[in-house]
Parts: sequence; structure tokens; C-alpha cells
Amino acid sequence: MEIKGFKFAAVEAAIKKPGRLDLGLIFSERPAAVAAVFTTNKVKAAPVLLDMERLKSGFCQAVVVNSGNANACTGVQGMDDARETARLVAEGLGIPDEATLVASTGVIGVPLPMARVRQGIAPLVEGLESGTLAAVAAAIMTTDTFSKLEVRSGDAGGAPYMITGIAKGAGMIMPNMATMLAFLVTDAAVDPVWLRKIFREANDASFNMISVDGDTSTNDTSLIMANGMAGNAPLAADSPDAVQFTELVQEVLLALAKQIVKDGEGATKFVTITVKGAQSNAEAKQAAMAIANSSLVKTAFFGQDANWGRILAAVGYSGVQVDADLVDLYFDDVLMARNGLFAGGDAETRGSEVLKGNEFSVTVDLKLGKGLATVYTSDLSYDYVKINADYRT
Amino acid sequence: MEIKGFKFAAVEAAIKKPGRLDLGLIFSERPAAVAAVFTTNKVKAAPVLLDMERLKSGFCQAVVVNSGNANACTGVQGMDDARETARLVAEGLGIPDEATLVASTGVIGVPLPMARVRQGIAPLVEGLESGTLAAVAAAIMTTDTFSKLEVRSGDAGGAPYMITGIAKGAGMIMPNMATMLAFLVTDAAVDPVWLRKIFREANDASFNMISVDGDTSTNDTSLIMANGMAGNAPLAADSPDAVQFTELVQEVLLALAKQIVKDGEGATKFVTITVKGAQSNAEAKQAAMAIANSSLVKTAFFGQDANWGRILAAVGYSGVQVDADLVDLYFDDVLMARNGLFAGGDAETRGSEVLKGNEFSVTVDLKLGKGLATVYTSDLSYDYVKINADYRT
Repeated sequence: MEIKGFKFAAVEAAIKKPGRLDLGLIFSERPAAVAAVFTTNKVKAAPVLLDMERLKSGFCQAVVVNSGNANACTGVQGMDDARETARLVAEGLGIPDEATLVASTGVIGVPLPMARVRQGIAPLVEGLESGTLAAVAAAIMTTDTFSKLEVRSGDAGGAPYMITGIAKGAGMIMPNMATMLAFLVTDAAVDPVWLRKIFREANDASFNMISVDGDTSTNDTSLIMANGMAGNAPLAADSPDAVQFTELVQEVLLALAKQIVKDGEGATKFVTITVKGAQSNAEAKQAAMAIANSSLVKTAFFGQDANWGRILAAVGYSGVQVDADLVDLYFDDVLMARNGLFAGGDAETRGSEVLKGNEFSVTVDLKLGKGLATVYTSDLSYDYVKINADYRT
Repeated sequence: MEIKGFKFAAVEAAIKKPGRLDLGLIFSERPAAVAAVFTTNKVKAAPVLLDMERLKSGFCQAVVVNSGNANACTGVQGMDDARETARLVAEGLGIPDEATLVASTGVIGVPLPMARVRQGIAPLVEGLESGTLAAVAAAIMTTDTFSKLEVRSGDAGGAPYMITGIAKGAGMIMPNMATMLAFLVTDAAVDPVWLRKIFREANDASFNMISVDGDTSTNDTSLIMANGMAGNAPLAADSPDAVQFTELVQEVLLALAKQIVKDGEGATKFVTITVKGAQSNAEAKQAAMAIANSSLVKTAFFGQDANWGRILAAVGYSGVQVDADLVDLYFDDVLMARNGLFAGGDAETRGSEVLKGNEFSVTVDLKLGKGLATVYTSDLSYDYVKINADYRT
């Protein structure tokens, strides 16, 4: 089974350096309903500004994406370059300019090398005949160590459809501005207004639950195209199969989000952090994010140090309601602290054993209410520093 | 010239491990006016809770401080231990319990080893005959690589006085909970209500302008004792010498704050970050702190990479009003970006040269208003990770 009506291509345009795929194209034979969420950073890259404008129609037909250069902090020239890239792709495909979106990731503040982008576009369009989404997933990688692709299939009123997504990761550990990109394509027919609603919610429940949240880059983009080639009646809020479609979109996004965490810069641990018993779900998330974003907690994870006090302290400064004398804290199923105090016994030994694993969970019970949230994060290692100290060179 | 009416002592109590001073005492022969600011963390260590209660009188006579154990997340036992420590010191000194304050720094969640604390108190009190504040400064060190002491002298209505301060640092780089302690003593006579006001303001202009801000530990304490032995008429808001005293307190605190940054865990750079042209001083500080707290900016400093785009992006997500097309950015006096764009010419070469220094400044001009703030920070190095991964062991 394959996804109907989409074609893909990726080429080497040597945008930052030669020797790797760095220019990708997603093309739908028909105009597709499109929804996207973008960075909340006030400094937005040119492609983000262009896409925000073009998305208002609710439809698009192509997305061209490059790595190696973010086309951010590039002013009027950057907007001109984003527009020209879209126009050249649109001409090659024989579709309207306005149906073409652009995304970029890489170094900030350097103009796009347009000569190389221009040279790349003809082979890119030709490549659609034989290209794959997996190749596009490779072309958008920056410091990622593996490409990220997820596939799900569903059924809408008897018509089978697929949802396929790719993503590139971010400097996961306190990723103040490393770019996150995700592109989903589905051949299901979907009402564009409803698609926008569920896609935003699905992003909140996935990419906004990994510690990329808040500190967004100039280029963050998560986008879905639905071209309707599966032949179903367009899915909308009252469709019998709306729930399944929504869940599959969430599944793809959450799976991609977890892959991003696992591929965090220098990451050696994948940590699931759950806060329960908070006064609200929002407070639970706020506390979980404070834990996930604490450099001291993350370095303790890297050091396999069962330093539960740092976690409790992070909850303390997170700003949420907390009574230190009530808090329970677990590493996996090992109770480390009960009512804010060290649990004693063999907790230290057993807790340290848990932290030796590559994947483990931290659970904090505030015992104040019913608020619950789970976020995903990684540790902070030497390699994070190494990767980011030398990023531009 | 020496500070009148204060005595100091420090001993080795082997609280965490033997071989270093770890228990200190500051004693004023007379009750001293006292003011303090404490951590805003909702999880507060036992000594902080005890001191907050005892400070209400506005006077104290002794502070006993230990390193090696934070006495935080230690519950009822922790409060009992803090009280007993104060009581034993008070008995040794022949002063009221309530005139004795306690401070602790070190590992969280482990009860104070009271047997060793008890044993240390008699030699501590005896040590007052020959002890120095410098020895107390050494006794409060944890991961600090040097002790921090500042001295200033002033004159109030013809009476010379001194202000001496010591501090211990924090895991400076995103110091989510490493403790900051500072103790100032002066023989000037100062009205306790006014002292409280100016001390709070001076802390805002010093310790709250280094990137310790916000992510406070369970134990952060900054305290001043003024015993009046200089013989001046008590300083208050309308005293002719009030401004000088206020400035000297600020000088001592700011000098200690800068020493803390320079001794940041693993720090190799001391960076002064100024944001001007913001819509308010508060927005200028918010933007400067976003830069100072960005792990990606800090790792670029460590890598001596003139990556001005990361700085601009940090301003963009800081939440303040910003027009990316207006922003100018300097490394020292080298213009790196003008109106949001790379300045060109030899800016890259000259900017990289600036970042090779051990101390440099970053100036961001938002060109929107008159808001101005300067904060101080350090870089994020391999050693930060090393220190914090292995802290408890």
C-alpha cells in the first residue's frame, strides 16, 4: 500500500557543504488541504513569514525544504530568496506560486546561497519520478544522527488511507533555537478548517510535550497536507471516522517527537517525566517542563546520579502550587522520596540502578489535585557542549 | 582599620568529608540590625524557614553556616536540626536562641550529620578569638574554586565604618538550584527598616542581574548585619550619608556577584550583556536574561563562535517587544549586525577575535525605547557537565 497522489524528491545542492542531500520536495498531484503550526519566536525566518501568508487559503500543493541555511535574520533579501525558491519550484511543477511553501533549517544570519539553490531545483523536480519521503527525511537533517519517519494507516468510510510523517530534531537539551521541522502527508480527504483545529491540538500533545517547548527557534514548522486521493468523504468533526484520524495524526506526531528526544544532541538517556496530583493539567505540565529543562537535573541523569533533591527543587521553583511535605517521587517504580523526604532503605541503590538504563521514567506526585502531564526529555552530556560549541564550523 | 565588634571563626567538622573548613560563625558583640533576602523557591531549606521567622525582629547577633549539606528536603528532622544548631551556638556564645541564624549549602535530601555538627560547635566558638572572615568565606565554598571577599569603607557623620562581604557561588550556567550565599557585616549603625529596603534593592541590582536569577535554589540567602559599633547616628533614608552607604552596599554585592560569575562552574568566559533601546528596563532585563540563559548562546561563547544569530533568536523568544529589522548587535565595539542583518566587512574576523578574550561584552540595541539593563554571565563548557554529573560523588 502506498500513499496516493504524493511524490517526493531530494538532491544534493551543497547549500552548506557538499556530500549530502540538503534540498527536498514534497508534491501533491492535487491541491491538498494544509494546516501548520509555526515558531512563536518574534524573530521569524523568511520561509515562516511566507508560509504564514500562503497558508491562509487552506490549500497548497508543494513544500520545498532545505537544510544547511535557516534563511533567518536575512531581511528583505531573505524574503526575496524564499519567494524566488518557491517561484522556481512552482514553475518547474506547473502550479501556482501561492500553492508552494518553503521551509529552511540551518545557520542563522547568512543569506541563502541562491546560485546553488537555483541549480538544484531542476534536478529536484525531475527527481520526483523516483524519489522517496525517506530521502526528504534525510535531506532535512542537521545535527540529527538518524532520519525520522513514521507511517500509520486508517480507514475512512471504507476508503483506506495513509498518514506518513517525517521530522528533523533540535538541539534537544534546552534547545533555545535549534529548529524542529515536521511534515505529514495523508491521502485522506479532510476538511481544511477541522484539519487546522486537530493538527494544532495534536502538536500541543506531542511536540509541545517534549522539552523543545517554549524556547522555539526562528524556523520551527510542523505541517500536514491532506490531498483526498484516498477517495473518502472529507473528514470533519462529525465524521464517524474523525476520532481514528485524529488519533493517528497524534500517534505520528508523538512518535516523531519521541524520536527527536532520543536523537537529542549528545543524548544518552530518554526520560519520561510524569507529574500527577497537580492542581491542574497546566500546572502539571509546567512542573514537568521545569524538571525537563533543568540543566542540573539533566547532568545528574547523564551522571546516573539518583539526585532526587534536584528534581524536587525544580518543582519548587517551577511556579506551581506545591507542598514540599507531600511530594512523592519515583524513578521507574522505585520510591525515592515519600512526603518530601528520602524514602530510605535500599532506595538509593535501586534508584541508581534505574538510572543506569537508557530509558527510564521519573514520576512526581504532588498530591494536591488531579492535574496530570507527561513530557519527554534527554540528559545533558559532554557531547551537547561539543556539538553546539562547534556548530557553525 | 578593622571592622569593629565582629568576630569570626571556621572549623573542619567533616560534614560531607574531612580535610576542609566546612563550619563557620559570624558573631557580633552587640545585637546588630539585620536584613536578608531568601530564595523564592517554594521548596525552602530548614535554615531558610528558621531565619525567615527569626528575622522579623530586625536584629540578630550570630550566623552559623555549614557547607557539605543543604539541610533541605529534610522535613521535621531538618527543622529540629537547624534549631538545635542555633541553640548550641547561642549557648556557647551566651546569647538568646532567637538572635542566632543558620545557613546551609550542599547536598539536598540528606539529614545533617548532627553528631559532627555538635562536635564542631565548641571549637567553633573558641575559634572566635583568632578567626577571620576570610576563613568563613573558605568554609562556605562548595564547587567554588576560590573564596570571595570584598571590603569597602565609608564615613557616616565623621565616623568611619567598614562593610565587608563574603559569598559562595552557584552552578552558574543555568543554575537551577546551586546555592548562592552572601553575608555582609558592617560596623555602621543603620536603621533596620531602612536597611531592609536598601538591601533588597541592592540585591535586585546585583545578584538578580547575574544569571542566577529565577532558577533559585532551596537555600539561597543574602544577609547583612549592621552592629553600630562605628558610633555614627543610625543611617536612614534622610541621613546625609545614606547615599554613600547605599552605594557601598551595592558595590560590595555587585563585586561579589561578578566574582560568582567568574567562578561559575566550568566557566572560561566572563560576559557582560547589555540590552538597550527596549520598551522598559524590565523588558531590557528580560531580553538580557534570555541571552544569558541560552545554552546555545553559552556553548557558542565557549566555542568562541561569533554566532550572533543565536543571540538575536534568544531576544526573539524572550517575550519582549522586538522588531527584528531594527536590531543592532555588538561584540565589544565590533558591530556584528545592523538592522537585524549581518554587518558584513571584516565583522566575522573581528568578532571572533573579541570572543577569544576571557572577558567581553555583548550589546544589543532594540531601538524601540529607553529601556536599559546589564547582566553578567559565563559560558557553558565541558567542565560544567563534568562538575554537575558527578556532584554527589
